[in-house]
Amino acid sequence: MPISVAVAGASGYAGGELLRLLAAHPEFEVNVVTAHQNAGQPLSAVHPHLRSLRDLVLQPTDPAILAEADVVFLALPHGASGAVTARLPEDVLVIDCGADHRLTDPAAWDAFYGGDYHGAWNYGLPELLLDGGATKQRENLVGATRIAVPGCNVTAITLGLAPGIAAGVIEPNDLVAVLAVGTSGAGKSLRADLLFSEQSGSAGAYAVGGVHRHTPEIVQNLQAAGGAGVTISFTPVLIPMSRGILATSTARLAPGVSATDVREAWEAAYAGETFVQLLPEGSFPRSGDTTGANTALIGLTVDENAGRVVVVSAIDNLVKGTAGAAIQSANLALGLPEATGLPQNGVAP
Amino acid sequence: MPISVAVAGASGYAGGELLRLLAAHPEFEVNVVTAHQNAGQPLSAVHPHLRSLRDLVLQPTDPAILAEADVVFLALPHGASGAVTARLPEDVLVIDCGADHRLTDPAAWDAFYGGDYHGAWNYGLPELLLDGGATKQRENLVGATRIAVPGCNVTAITLGLAPGIAAGVIEPNDLVAVLAVGTSGAGKSLRADLLFSEQSGSAGAYAVGGVHRHTPEIVQNLQAAGGAGVTISFTPVLIPMSRGILATSTARLAPGVSATDVREAWEAAYAGETFVQLLPEGSFPRSGDTTGANTALIGLTVDENAGRVVVVSAIDNLVKGTAGAAIQSANLALGLPEATGLPQNGVAP
Amino acid sequence: MPISVAVAGASGYAGGELLRLLAAHPEFEVNVVTAHQNAGQPLSAVHPHLRSLRDLVLQPTDPAILAEADVVFLALPHGASGAVTARLPEDVLVIDCGADHRLTDPAAWDAFYGGDYHGAWNYGLPELLLDGGATKQRENLVGATRIAVPGCNVTAITLGLAPGIAAGVIEPNDLVAVLAVGTSGAGKSLRADLLFSEQSGSAGAYAVGGVHRHTPEIVQNLQAAGGAGVTISFTPVLIPMSRGILATSTARLAPGVSATDVREAWEAAYAGETFVQLLPEGSFPRSGDTTGANTALIGLTVDENAGRVVVVSAIDNLVKGTAGAAIQSANLALGLPEATGLPQNGVAP
Amino acid sequence: MPISVAVAGASGYAGGELLRLLAAHPEFEVNVVTAHQNAGQPLSAVHPHLRSLRDLVLQPTDPAILAEADVVFLALPHGASGAVTARLPEDVLVIDCGADHRLTDPAAWDAFYGGDYHGAWNYGLPELLLDGGATKQRENLVGATRIAVPGCNVTAITLGLAPGIAAGVIEPNDLVAVLAVGTSGAGKSLRADLLFSEQSGSAGAYAVGGVHRHTPEIVQNLQAAGGAGVTISFTPVLIPMSRGILATSTARLAPGVSATDVREAWEAAYAGETFVQLLPEGSFPRSGDTTGANTALIGLTVDENAGRVVVVSAIDNLVKGTAGAAIQSANLALGLPEATGLPQNGVAP
Repeated sequence: MPISVAVAGASGYAGGELLRLLAAHPEFEVNVVTAHQNAGQPLSAVHPHLRSLRDLVLQPTDPAILAEADVVFLALPHGASGAVTARLPEDVLVIDCGADHRLTDPAAWDAFYGGDYHGAWNYGLPELLLDGGATKQRENLVGATRIAVPGCNVTAITLGLAPGIAAGVIEPNDLVAVLAVGTSGAGKSLRADLLFSEQSGSAGAYAVGGVHRHTPEIVQNLQAAGGAGVTISFTPVLIPMSRGILATSTARLAPGVSATDVREAWEAAYAGETFVQLLPEGSFPRSGDTTGANTALIGLTVDENAGRVVVVSAIDNLVKGTAGAAIQSANLALGLPEATGLPQNGVAP
Repeated sequence: MPISVAVAGASGYAGGELLRLLAAHPEFEVNVVTAHQNAGQPLSAVHPHLRSLRDLVLQPTDPAILAEADVVFLALPHGASGAVTARLPEDVLVIDCGADHRLTDPAAWDAFYGGDYHGAWNYGLPELLLDGGATKQRENLVGATRIAVPGCNVTAITLGLAPGIAAGVIEPNDLVAVLAVGTSGAGKSLRADLLFSEQSGSAGAYAVGGVHRHTPEIVQNLQAAGGAGVTISFTPVLIPMSRGILATSTARLAPGVSATDVREAWEAAYAGETFVQLLPEGSFPRSGDTTGANTALIGLTVDENAGRVVVVSAIDNLVKGTAGAAIQSANLALGLPEATGLPQNGVAP
Repeated sequence: MPISVAVAGASGYAGGELLRLLAAHPEFEVNVVTAHQNAGQPLSAVHPHLRSLRDLVLQPTDPAILAEADVVFLALPHGASGAVTARLPEDVLVIDCGADHRLTDPAAWDAFYGGDYHGAWNYGLPELLLDGGATKQRENLVGATRIAVPGCNVTAITLGLAPGIAAGVIEPNDLVAVLAVGTSGAGKSLRADLLFSEQSGSAGAYAVGGVHRHTPEIVQNLQAAGGAGVTISFTPVLIPMSRGILATSTARLAPGVSATDVREAWEAAYAGETFVQLLPEGSFPRSGDTTGANTALIGLTVDENAGRVVVVSAIDNLVKGTAGAAIQSANLALGLPEATGLPQNGVAP
Repeated sequence: MPISVAVAGASGYAGGELLRLLAAHPEFEVNVVTAHQNAGQPLSAVHPHLRSLRDLVLQPTDPAILAEADVVFLALPHGASGAVTARLPEDVLVIDCGADHRLTDPAAWDAFYGGDYHGAWNYGLPELLLDGGATKQRENLVGATRIAVPGCNVTAITLGLAPGIAAGVIEPNDLVAVLAVGTSGAGKSLRADLLFSEQSGSAGAYAVGGVHRHTPEIVQNLQAAGGAGVTISFTPVLIPMSRGILATSTARLAPGVSATDVREAWEAAYAGETFVQLLPEGSFPRSGDTTGANTALIGLTVDENAGRVVVVSAIDNLVKGTAGAAIQSANLALGLPEATGLPQNGVAP
């Protein structure tokens, strides 16, 4: 019998991508979709590309309706999950794609989000190295009932830098990351700067100067990987593509570390991983090669002259950055094979 | 009587942009256009957008033909200018948009380009601060007869960081710059990775690890501005737009420097400039606002937590990054008002 | 002394493009810019690309303020011009970029727009053939004080088909036109379907089935050119580019007409025109070659098998399609050389 | 035991898309991939997005190597299939994505392609109506061993117009179709006009005037559907997107036919189809809603004033237009459920 699934916030981009992946998942069946403004409409009105689900109708985001499902995926705006999750039964598996349950430090929540703090949940990044690489976050996810999906930018930078931090081959302070991200990362918001006419042929940085909300989450992850005193200068750049993230992250080499040491650290971290793959020396990923896939591609080199490691990581912000990570974590929580229903291959060109 | 102009390498993107701007310049008249493979063709075959020049015919790139003009603009591949310029009369003003005459250090030329070194020319970046801001490069350009136009990425990063270096408010070592650039920066090359199908919806870093040829030129400029021991980690990222550069450059704050000191350094550097403009605190440029214009826009802030200044600079790689800089420098060399014939306003959306 | 100009509706795309062109016009000086929601803001807040006009401040769209200028350009939403123009002095030259004064037939206004009908003005398409080609609309514009600028789609299709209609070489009934148009044609509206995420990588038809408001205006023009019983199936397709129109228009060959007759009709129509150019047999325009230019490019051939003439016409919807046509008409009305201040060359790539 | 599959011409876009779909197909296993210039390279060198197949190595396109598989998909340039297929055993199922075996009329082959004519194969468009709708092409595909996959433009226009032709509610002569197509339709060719810099922000028609090679194949299909004397004016327009086709097709209403008759004809044609879906009156598809899916979406209306039916059809040129159609036909030939392994949902935004 299929596992019954509900998706709250189904009308947005994260919600739509959850539905696209869930529709192809052999164990899940989407029975409930909810929305706020679009409640009452057929799903086809907001996601005409989801032909196989076109008979679903959007219901209001009511915890009682969601609780009918075995698994609930939340794709709600930041600050909206907390109130809903408090009213869901404990035996329902809840996967929150929003930020409400990501940060372990209430002060960081206050500083970057504000409003009520709802506590941190089990963190949905299975490949995250913990404690210097002694283990990975995947182990914590088995049997979990409450999971917080990482921020998309966070995933790209964390996967890029954590191996070096865990292995001690790069300095955790004075990290610098500049990340190119497509417009779907900003959601379906009706903002003038997100119009095609404005974004086409133009790139622009935003949240410059360390104020992006994903910053404390990156620090939290890299500290969990083993870094003490992590500081990062993080700048996101909105570029004219719909999906995708390409993060360029740099760190100073730790003293006495060779380029071989560096490569070995990353190789060891991701050997055997299905969805996180290190490219050979001299190869660097393009974000387009991950479109539609739950795959993170990582390129790595050492700039000897600058004394810095440079890591380039690519993901699809809506898949490995959100919906794919959510389903991968749900698979783990439910004891299914981790890769069930998740595409490894991108849609290109 | 108009000043007679020749453009060598007219069939490429830099050549085409030179022609577009020269056609609107009130003092110049384009009489000679040359090309290599396309010699013999009408200009309209390679640049159908240049309607007013459609009766010109591409001639071979022969120094004797070029020497008929009062001013020669060279838009040739790297390594090709040297042989041509050696055969041009001294009284012809020659503006080289290639790299052959940019680097003052033969060892840097050898390391990053190779082949014969042809010596450095007067450098075509009028707004470049020199000697801690005591003067600007514009003064050196008056009356010049040989001018090397900067690399496009170089211009974006140099204009972004030089004020802080010159004023001593940022540390010159451990600079990090990640630069998003449109595909025209790679020229009209028939490379599979430059196809629309490949670039659309995808971002990718290249020349990662300090190996991009523009690196030593950036160092040269920032040292001229007053920095000692400049080192930079520079990563270019090719993004799906045709024109434009958005550079995110960061530097560690010098000890004891405040955010006010920082802003004052940049304000002082660019007060009164027509083509380089500092945006107010909290504002950051989009590359699209400079499309078609000879304008550099700069946004600036301090990330106190990371201890870094973050500068975002935007230019059109083909205008302020190449053809506009060439004409601005030519205006100065010839004693014309510096802004003659150069658009300050972008074409948007 | 410069001619004083006001632009109403300056915060939209048509308004912005008027300002870009006016700023480069040697006879005009923009003194007044007005807006509705954005009144009170500096122009740089809505058009950061217009650096040379950044000190202007948007005022409310008040006829008394506009009347201070010698020339008033209106770039208001359809239905909004009428109320403003009724209160402007007769001796002010008023150029309306909206639809309010385009249609001569009140019934067509009612059927396609509705609301108060304000009467037709002198029509701002100088190259429009009249009466079988006996004359062109340019003659009517000399000395005009009230001018209605054509719709952008209308201009592309009219310029494409009018020569054949005027010369009688094509049948005026059963015309078919399918037109690809960039998103700026839909304005700066906050509509979900205009988001970059939605438009990128997708094409979609709209106003299908003869219901687009530009339909009666096309018919009106082609009838003025000499056609009786004009009927057209017109379908616009929104495509992922910011600017530009590419219209593919077809008509049945009139009996006994040869391909040579066809080409001669178009050649005769546009010989000597600065801004409308017929390409040689076998050449067809790309919309990108007209970006930023006041140029219409036309390609033409006969499909003998289908018995149809096929005309491909390209313009920049914001320039020859709106702002450029407005200024070209204003030049004529004021007795200035028709091409004053208008770029013939596109910005490419 | 999985069915063994070979893909010839695996390095191009059609080959890559075949591999993406085949990798997710539950019954097929890709064992052989071949190429011409890229033989000897790992598949990851040409398709870095196909992570699950990265250990495959491209072999030369040798019939003996291909013949090891149970099913051979050919994605070779036009004119190249014939020589290969002549040397494949009869009991191997061969699916040709090229044009070599599509046309039943040798004269049409000569006129539009030229070179040796290799005969027509079973035509891989299961939903094609035959004989006035008495049957569909799917029936002919069961048990087939040689299948010719339709041209991508052909599929979009055929699916759009065939229901009306078959039902006799539209006139088969004087059809007009204008089709917007993404750049992957032109393949991975190193042509200057296919560069991102050239295609971005620009639309252009090509093969204008009835000379596109897909024209006779459209006529062949519509005549098979029941039309006598089919003539069509067909113009393809290359637009700035990587994938997708949006065809706008029009036909004159047959005498005495009502809008209700029209809709009923299309509804009857596609009722129960999984991959071809008619949208409700007033809804028209966007090509982006079919990206990555084997889905054709069709919008339909009547323009009473013009006396024409207007049909808008959207497909992904690489999926329903090529690779998806190939696999759907292979499923039918092999007696598998027709939809096996084929996505119905698009990847959006």
